[in-house]
Amino acid sequence: MEKTTVLYAGKAKQMFNTDDPDVLWVEYKDQATALNGKKKVQIAGKGELNRKISSLLFAELNAAGLPTHYLKTLDATTMLVKKCTMIPLEAVVRNFASGSFERKFQVAHLRPLVPAVHEFFYKSDALDDPFINDEQAIALGYADQATIQAIHTLSDQVNAYLKERFAQLGIDLVDFKLEFGRLSDGTLVLADELSPDNMRLVDQESGNSLDKDVFRKDQGPLTPVYAQVLERLQSVVSR
Amino acid sequence: MEKTTVLYAGKAKQMFNTDDPDVLWVEYKDQATALNGKKKVQIAGKGELNRKISSLLFAELNAAGLPTHYLKTLDATTMLVKKCTMIPLEAVVRNFASGSFERKFQVAHLRPLVPAVHEFFYKSDALDDPFINDEQAIALGYADQATIQAIHTLSDQVNAYLKERFAQLGIDLVDFKLEFGRLSDGTLVLADELSPDNMRLVDQESGNSLDKDVFRKDQGPLTPVYAQVLERLQSVVSR
Ligand SMILES: Nc1ncnc2c1ncn2[C@@H]1O[C@H](COP(=O)(O)OP(=O)(O)O)[C@@H](O)[C@H]1O
Ligand SMILES: Nc1ncnc2c1ncn2[C@@H]1O[C@H](COP(=O)(O)OP(=O)(O)O)[C@@H](O)[C@H]1O
Ligand SMILES: [Mg+2]
Ligand SMILES: [Mg+2]
Repeated sequence: MEKTTVLYAGKAKQMFNTDDPDVLWVEYKDQATALNGKKKVQIAGKGELNRKISSLLFAELNAAGLPTHYLKTLDATTMLVKKCTMIPLEAVVRNFASGSFERKFQVAHLRPLVPAVHEFFYKSDALDDPFINDEQAIALGYADQATIQAIHTLSDQVNAYLKERFAQLGIDLVDFKLEFGRLSDGTLVLADELSPDNMRLVDQESGNSLDKDVFRKDQGPLTPVYAQVLERLQSVVSR
Repeated sequence: MEKTTVLYAGKAKQMFNTDDPDVLWVEYKDQATALNGKKKVQIAGKGELNRKISSLLFAELNAAGLPTHYLKTLDATTMLVKKCTMIPLEAVVRNFASGSFERKFQVAHLRPLVPAVHEFFYKSDALDDPFINDEQAIALGYADQATIQAIHTLSDQVNAYLKERFAQLGIDLVDFKLEFGRLSDGTLVLADELSPDNMRLVDQESGNSLDKDVFRKDQGPLTPVYAQVLERLQSVVSR
């Protein structure tokens, strides 16, 4: 397998085509961004940690029967994934209030949200990723009703798996952002990445953030925190 | 029937209790506001026009079997309504893109939205009436799942009725905002008002706005426009 042309140079990853039209080559970058790219720095080792955490979690979800784009790991920062036609929505699931939700509704930090709240954001740099509801997404042709429903179901299943997995490590899964795509045969799969860049994780004992909030809020170096998440995941084998 | 204490002094109406605990006395004001109250002026005759249009439409909806809070008209600016426990949501229905929707998604003015788009805004001056989705409303306790579903259904029925009613007058119903409440026996009813203050109406021939956009956009005097809407509604008897 060889990488060929660049498909997409993103903020956190670089996506390459390969000689197989159904396979992409993904390189995780040592770059951290916040505030829609306004804050941007290089952090040595971040790419490798996010690749490792993503590989581990994607492989577990695949094994648990939850379809993801993940195929295999090539080296420290590179994985192969199934090429998708991406659905242009960020699917957020919230188990506890934090971030934009907490600010918007002026509710207590980490207030439990039962049942979990689903939100969609339309992936559009030009429009600044606006928050949208299901019917807006459908009327504007971003996704059809069946796709919205399938994303809800799969997001709930991923949430149930990850919540339990992190709970066993003494970590609360506060919220996370997923992206979905369709394979050439139409199958909906979880794509993009699964790392502390797109989840909020809070240590149950210390209350400390174990995720990108450390960077967003300048709470100190990020790699030791991501390394701790990886170690804790590796220390307890999944069911 | 006598009015007793002031229940609520709103921007467009004044709500009074009466000697009957299930009945409110509603006085429509000659006041127009926009930009969440930042723009505010007195417009003689507006209260009477909005009361008349609301009385006419509420009575028609009641007759069509769509439950509203409307009981009867007392004088030019006053009606009696059934007292509700209000659901703190503004339910917007959009048949064509306009206003905040058009700006947010940068879509063509009056682009048809099929099926009609429903949106909820949480009625909170402190939070600036934020746009929310169904699951946020449920998790935050603003309404339960069954109420959300019932509001969707009733909004669609009101939309079907009003769209057809205005189409017969050569007017497009672009969008509108509804508020719902529960009677003491738990029945969900359409409450608040039904006037060009909370609908966008566009004349099919001229393309002119026949609603509060005339005031929002300083397109000239408002009362002749509202008077025209009332006259056109009166000129064609409902089915
Ligand atoms: N399996 C896949 N097939 C095609 N595109 C994908 C796949 N997984 C993720 N992507 C897309 O590749 C890009 C990943 O790079 P990233 O650096 O996260 O981008 P961004 O700066 O847009 O967040 C995203 O646009 C994402 O939607
Ligand atoms: N049937 C009803 N029972 C109780 N409250 C109602 C009823 N109909 C409308 N209301 C409430 O009364 C107020 C109407 O006054 P208005 O001037 O529109 O207020 P606002 O400035 O909040 O828009 C609103 O708060 C509305 O929710
Ligand atoms: Mg990304
Ligand atoms: Mg009002």
